[in-house]
Amino acid sequence: MDVGFIGLGQMGAGMAANLVKAGYRVTVFNRTPARAAPLLAAGATAAEKLAEACRGDAVITMVADDDALEAVVLGDAGLLVTLAPGALHVSASTISVALAERLTAAHAAHGQRFVSAPVFGRPEVAAAGKLFIVAAGPQDAVADARPLLDAMGQRTFVLSATPKAANLVKLSGNFLIACVLESLGEAMALVDRGGIDRHEYLELLTSTLFTAPLYKGYGALIADRRFEPAGFTVPLGQKDIRLALAAAEDLKVPLPIANLLRDRFLTVRAHGGDHLDWSAIGAVAARDAGGQ
Amino acid sequence: MDVGFIGLGQMGAGMAANLVKAGYRVTVFNRTPARAAPLLAAGATAAEKLAEACRGDAVITMVADDDALEAVVLGDAGLLVTLAPGALHVSASTISVALAERLTAAHAAHGQRFVSAPVFGRPEVAAAGKLFIVAAGPQDAVADARPLLDAMGQRTFVLSATPKAANLVKLSGNFLIACVLESLGEAMALVDRGGIDRHEYLELLTSTLFTAPLYKGYGALIADRRFEPAGFTVPLGQKDIRLALAAAEDLKVPLPIANLLRDRFLTVRAHGGDHLDWSAIGAVAARDAGGQ
Amino acid sequence: MDVGFIGLGQMGAGMAANLVKAGYRVTVFNRTPARAAPLLAAGATAAEKLAEACRGDAVITMVADDDALEAVVLGDAGLLVTLAPGALHVSASTISVALAERLTAAHAAHGQRFVSAPVFGRPEVAAAGKLFIVAAGPQDAVADARPLLDAMGQRTFVLSATPKAANLVKLSGNFLIACVLESLGEAMALVDRGGIDRHEYLELLTSTLFTAPLYKGYGALIADRRFEPAGFTVPLGQKDIRLALAAAEDLKVPLPIANLLRDRFLTVRAHGGDHLDWSAIGAVAARDAGGQ
Amino acid sequence: MDVGFIGLGQMGAGMAANLVKAGYRVTVFNRTPARAAPLLAAGATAAEKLAEACRGDAVITMVADDDALEAVVLGDAGLLVTLAPGALHVSASTISVALAERLTAAHAAHGQRFVSAPVFGRPEVAAAGKLFIVAAGPQDAVADARPLLDAMGQRTFVLSATPKAANLVKLSGNFLIACVLESLGEAMALVDRGGIDRHEYLELLTSTLFTAPLYKGYGALIADRRFEPAGFTVPLGQKDIRLALAAAEDLKVPLPIANLLRDRFLTVRAHGGDHLDWSAIGAVAARDAGGQ
Repeated sequence: MDVGFIGLGQMGAGMAANLVKAGYRVTVFNRTPARAAPLLAAGATAAEKLAEACRGDAVITMVADDDALEAVVLGDAGLLVTLAPGALHVSASTISVALAERLTAAHAAHGQRFVSAPVFGRPEVAAAGKLFIVAAGPQDAVADARPLLDAMGQRTFVLSATPKAANLVKLSGNFLIACVLESLGEAMALVDRGGIDRHEYLELLTSTLFTAPLYKGYGALIADRRFEPAGFTVPLGQKDIRLALAAAEDLKVPLPIANLLRDRFLTVRAHGGDHLDWSAIGAVAARDAGGQ
Repeated sequence: MDVGFIGLGQMGAGMAANLVKAGYRVTVFNRTPARAAPLLAAGATAAEKLAEACRGDAVITMVADDDALEAVVLGDAGLLVTLAPGALHVSASTISVALAERLTAAHAAHGQRFVSAPVFGRPEVAAAGKLFIVAAGPQDAVADARPLLDAMGQRTFVLSATPKAANLVKLSGNFLIACVLESLGEAMALVDRGGIDRHEYLELLTSTLFTAPLYKGYGALIADRRFEPAGFTVPLGQKDIRLALAAAEDLKVPLPIANLLRDRFLTVRAHGGDHLDWSAIGAVAARDAGGQ
Repeated sequence: MDVGFIGLGQMGAGMAANLVKAGYRVTVFNRTPARAAPLLAAGATAAEKLAEACRGDAVITMVADDDALEAVVLGDAGLLVTLAPGALHVSASTISVALAERLTAAHAAHGQRFVSAPVFGRPEVAAAGKLFIVAAGPQDAVADARPLLDAMGQRTFVLSATPKAANLVKLSGNFLIACVLESLGEAMALVDRGGIDRHEYLELLTSTLFTAPLYKGYGALIADRRFEPAGFTVPLGQKDIRLALAAAEDLKVPLPIANLLRDRFLTVRAHGGDHLDWSAIGAVAARDAGGQ
Repeated sequence: MDVGFIGLGQMGAGMAANLVKAGYRVTVFNRTPARAAPLLAAGATAAEKLAEACRGDAVITMVADDDALEAVVLGDAGLLVTLAPGALHVSASTISVALAERLTAAHAAHGQRFVSAPVFGRPEVAAAGKLFIVAAGPQDAVADARPLLDAMGQRTFVLSATPKAANLVKLSGNFLIACVLESLGEAMALVDRGGIDRHEYLELLTSTLFTAPLYKGYGALIADRRFEPAGFTVPLGQKDIRLALAAAEDLKVPLPIANLLRDRFLTVRAHGGDHLDWSAIGAVAARDAGGQ
């Protein structure tokens, strides 16, 4: 099977490598061609132009945001005009529910098939092929996408025939992670002011009730105030909360914690924190309490 | 070692039974004497009056709230006047930080020793001797309390020489659990309005990023809207958030999610939900969104 | 002076009439031509096409939202392509700060002049020529717009050379009004539950500390639960809070009350309240408290 | 009529002086006797002990908080044991609804009459006899209190036969004022970041929609960041919001803005602002946005 892969950022590079490893003929495209070198060494083919990555049976996109995906799909010589009828576009990026809906309609109008398949996991998880993937789209399209997804992740959850459902779930998942950041930040601010060591407190929490790796990993970053280097930056975290709020607004769902998270990201950004890991919002509560 | 145990509610009954099982001579007291029957059958001695449970080396209290503990300790013929100098009071109840501070001073003034040792776990966990216990107090007092605590729990965390530190941690822990309830409630309200089945969603969450039993257990209650019978009622949950907010106020720590939780509990209570499990706050977001 | 006027809704009709009354030669355009009848009777000229209203020295636009204004300005045969170089576009609509910025650039690129001049006041105030108007734009452009603005309002505040500043002030003003709605809603929910008559309470408030007409007028609507007919509907109120939040996000300003207002509007809409006056958000606090 | 007046703080001194001016025989008591000097010069009599101020037909109390009033009424040689049967206690302090309820019961049990009559206005208003007074209590008691109240204020609102209703209204009023502080703080943070001068903005607001003196006075303090000297300090403002939240909790009324205000006061206090005017909470939004 010939597969195009567009977007070789920290996540995409690992994902594409796993496709190559699984035996697919992969043609990769990236705006910055140099990023493709390790993949070419591993057996991938380089596309000089976007369209060259769109000649196969399927194209997987893994780009930064709505704007980037719009450019790739709807732009000149984009997927919409280059992909063959019946070909499959698997969108793995974290994008808005609204864009997923527009792409669904646009691909349908061109006789192409579209699956939303956003992923959970950091770059090292993507490299290890251990992502969790949430897929939604027409049954046949998801069935055809499945082997590709299984090559990139440890488990694929198939949700619904409506692509945008997968995007909503992805955004809600990031919202829940950010809730962990904020709640840990508040709890640590409280016990810290009460004279309790944050690290001992975290050890207690994570060896009792909050055993999920999320609490351990992010808890340590917050307890240490170790927000650099960023695994996922503040502006990216803010973007996801913005998209979650936008989806919630369309569905008329008030989300009070998401509002608070929005404000936390704004506060961190207003204080020069664009380069920090998004877990930096977990330090705002302490600052409001006069600490640091 | 002779130990008194005061408070044979759902939690205390199991805790006292584990002390008996561990070979301690336990004298139990409860306002409603009938609750003592199973313990007497297991080998405990009944105290007809509170004072009779206070003649040994240590007394453990496990009562409903601040008022109950104040009555037991500071009331007529309470611990303060009946406990021998040097004897140990181990307070396992979830009480305010302020009361822990007052009891610390009161016991010290009477030459008695005081350890705060609140517990994490539901009644079945207490019965199984699997509680997590957070202890704080003077080193010698905690050392003497340790074997008792180990008999009741799977692990004891020793925190600080200041008893109230343990109470602060306990309250912060319940706050964090309530954050999970609210965040799951919001996320489920969102995906539910987006046409995604809440149970499938929860299965996805808990088999990927949110693997802690808390998310599974409470997530299922919220997805099912199964808030009866209550494991821990709405008014008790509200009480703990109130105590967390009170402690935070004394320490000058703003806790925005705790504020939201406060409002959620009030809303559930204002709508007749006093008999429900505290996870019922996880359904408020959906109602605000026009669902149920 | 020849003036075009585009948008004869509840607000625009009154504003255009005051221009006619002040002696301007006014050419009016509305998507629904019938709305123009009273103006024609008063002496205005009807434009059958948008472009016909753009032949004079200035065009005033008063339309529903960003989309409408974009269509009018940037659409086929819109202001951008029909307005003469040097001609003036006065935008009185409540639009986003971002759109004001785009229109500023677009008009500049076409050698046209642009003034943002949003207005405060309900339809009856517009009809009476008693609006408050906030104007911003290049000094000469504002000077030329001034007589027109003075014909439509009781007072014009000139703010800045940057048009979008006026839009930001307008949005912040509507935000402040919505704060009054919510705060009155909460206070009334509280005293109502405490057995105090809402109307007596409002009389007390507005004859002592809160003497502004806003408190009297909206307070009465909230105390009466009289949200129909709407003077300004819930979706319009929501839109303005959305635009305020968007502007705040760009400027990195957390606005916690605006977040709450956002949720209130969503709750009212989720419960079928699109047709209600935006003061209906003032009843949500009481419903959360188990009242109505 | 012989009247006792207890509490000669900034407010009480002015109020007592107006009673003397109105011709009452006033016996004053203050913990710090020196504060009484100007009143004695004006014709009042000094009580060396609290009980000496309780021998007349009525006693008015104007003290700092719940604790102070409890000491005055329920303490040794307090009003409860010294006031004659049928005598009247008029409580003008801002106290909790719960304490008003307890005092109502306590006085009734001693055959004494009790009226809650909290006041709105700053010290200079009290001195000028221009306070607004909210009174509640049994009809005959309020009727007897009325001339005294009228001597101290420009208008008295009689609310209900239940004294605590007046305290609830007082607390709700201070809550509404604090809402103005916070909403102005947010709006000013927004426009300030947008390049608009805060003072010009305030002038615009208060000459159009927000004409109440509250907006002008507090708006100027916030625009100027002029929080010293304090007319009403941060801890006092915080106390009133705490009491409003406590009353709301008893009545099961969620008050989201009050929660936010609570956090704002905590933030200001955590940053050393105890000496500032409570309007200092109006600067927190700007600081969150990276300003000052």
